[in-house]
Amino acid sequence: MTESPLPKGPAWPQFEPGWVWLCGAGPGDPGLMTLHGLNALRQADVVVYDALVETAILAWAPQAEHIYAGKRGGKPSPKQTDISLRLVELAQAGKRVLRLKGGDPFVFGRGGEEAQMLVAHGVPFRVIPGITAGIGGLAYAGIPVTHREVNQSVTFVTGHDQTGETPAALDWAAIARGSQVIVIYMGMKHIAEITSALMAGGRDPAEPVAVVTNATTPDQRVLETTLGAVVADVAAAGMEPPAIFCVGRVGDYRAELNWQRFIGP
Amino acid sequence: MTESPLPKGPAWPQFEPGWVWLCGAGPGDPGLMTLHGLNALRQADVVVYDALVETAILAWAPQAEHIYAGKRGGKPSPKQTDISLRLVELAQAGKRVLRLKGGDPFVFGRGGEEAQMLVAHGVPFRVIPGITAGIGGLAYAGIPVTHREVNQSVTFVTGHDQTGETPAALDWAAIARGSQVIVIYMGMKHIAEITSALMAGGRDPAEPVAVVTNATTPDQRVLETTLGAVVADVAAAGMEPPAIFCVGRVGDYRAELNWQRFIGP
Repeated sequence: MTESPLPKGPAWPQFEPGWVWLCGAGPGDPGLMTLHGLNALRQADVVVYDALVETAILAWAPQAEHIYAGKRGGKPSPKQTDISLRLVELAQAGKRVLRLKGGDPFVFGRGGEEAQMLVAHGVPFRVIPGITAGIGGLAYAGIPVTHREVNQSVTFVTGHDQTGETPAALDWAAIARGSQVIVIYMGMKHIAEITSALMAGGRDPAEPVAVVTNATTPDQRVLETTLGAVVADVAAAGMEPPAIFCVGRVGDYRAELNWQRFIGP
Repeated sequence: MTESPLPKGPAWPQFEPGWVWLCGAGPGDPGLMTLHGLNALRQADVVVYDALVETAILAWAPQAEHIYAGKRGGKPSPKQTDISLRLVELAQAGKRVLRLKGGDPFVFGRGGEEAQMLVAHGVPFRVIPGITAGIGGLAYAGIPVTHREVNQSVTFVTGHDQTGETPAALDWAAIARGSQVIVIYMGMKHIAEITSALMAGGRDPAEPVAVVTNATTPDQRVLETTLGAVVADVAAAGMEPPAIFCVGRVGDYRAELNWQRFIGP
């Protein structure tokens, strides 16, 4: 049985020379890439990719040059401007430039800044959203990020700001009261400070916290703990970034909904 | 040129009879379906789909029976239990059951409840996340849901709860202070009440609000307004659900980042 590279239906966009496509690769599992993303990979001349993009995904663009532009979490990133300018240069050289970022380009991903640089230099671009780890990664741990019995809101927050520190602009007490569920990206470095702020804001130390590292990949690890114990438990377990922290009672559903148990190793 | 139905790399999961796969179809554009979603569509015996799933997506499962299970927003949904039980029945009859939901199954999508019903009846299942409209739909309007110059947190909130009313459990003043950006799902019915609560909580009536209806589809409409004017402007524009409301200064980036202008009609 043979089929066309992409299913019929939509007119699959043609990747024109001189364009940049900003694309989210999803949280890790290559199967969570979108069809638009696959279409992009198959046409790109060059793929500029981040640390969190799986090599299996890059293998779908064998014709393209692959340029690593990864940055490491928690540190200031002086190179962001360089990355953006590299995209401009490649596009101006007539390449079809696929900028492939982990997760979604617009969820704590600095895709907005890259797009602004493209606009400033007259480079046309398209955006292809991706599955974000705070939703899809938790789903792979059996945790629904919303459940009508628990929450009518969910807050996504980044664990560090431009300076690499805990975001000073945030009103952590308000966040504690505003959403029954709080999902923290890039929180490993400052988790002690963040959880203290949430408890000072009224959150119960016994509240469930799920920590998911390397979400949706074969290396996924899940730790179930509480707001009061997470700092010690993460250290004891030796967990490393990339991590997602989910604070809230939706974590309790994991016992019931962890569908990975049906699939096995 | 011929290629295999799905790219090489991961071992694409086999859809076994008697299983249910809970899958997010994304916000509308069929190209935002994931590869795992396409793999599911090609193997399913039956597809139980919601109102917001595009027919082009269903066409990728020509071999399957298609069962409409849509509910209409804003109304109580007494049929949710019936839908969940239907999934159980179909699985117990030995079908490969693809439950296809708009957006992501776990973002205000009631996928958790459906999964619980499956567990209660011993039906094995898998979850395939989808792109949620509050991220991907805004991206198609040229709005980054986060931008480091604007926000270190974003809150997603549903505009109605189990009763069909504005969620009474929510502390709207805390939400107003907790996140520089607030994305409201299913907010059309109660937008006056919600915006009043946010302004009472301290948000500036002049703050940008973007309203996106039918996000990522050919019928997408985008209205740029303010917190103080959104109620009147949405009425004047005659906008209808499904809608996403984005409150916050990230809406200002649309002038610069609306990449649809490069693509044209």
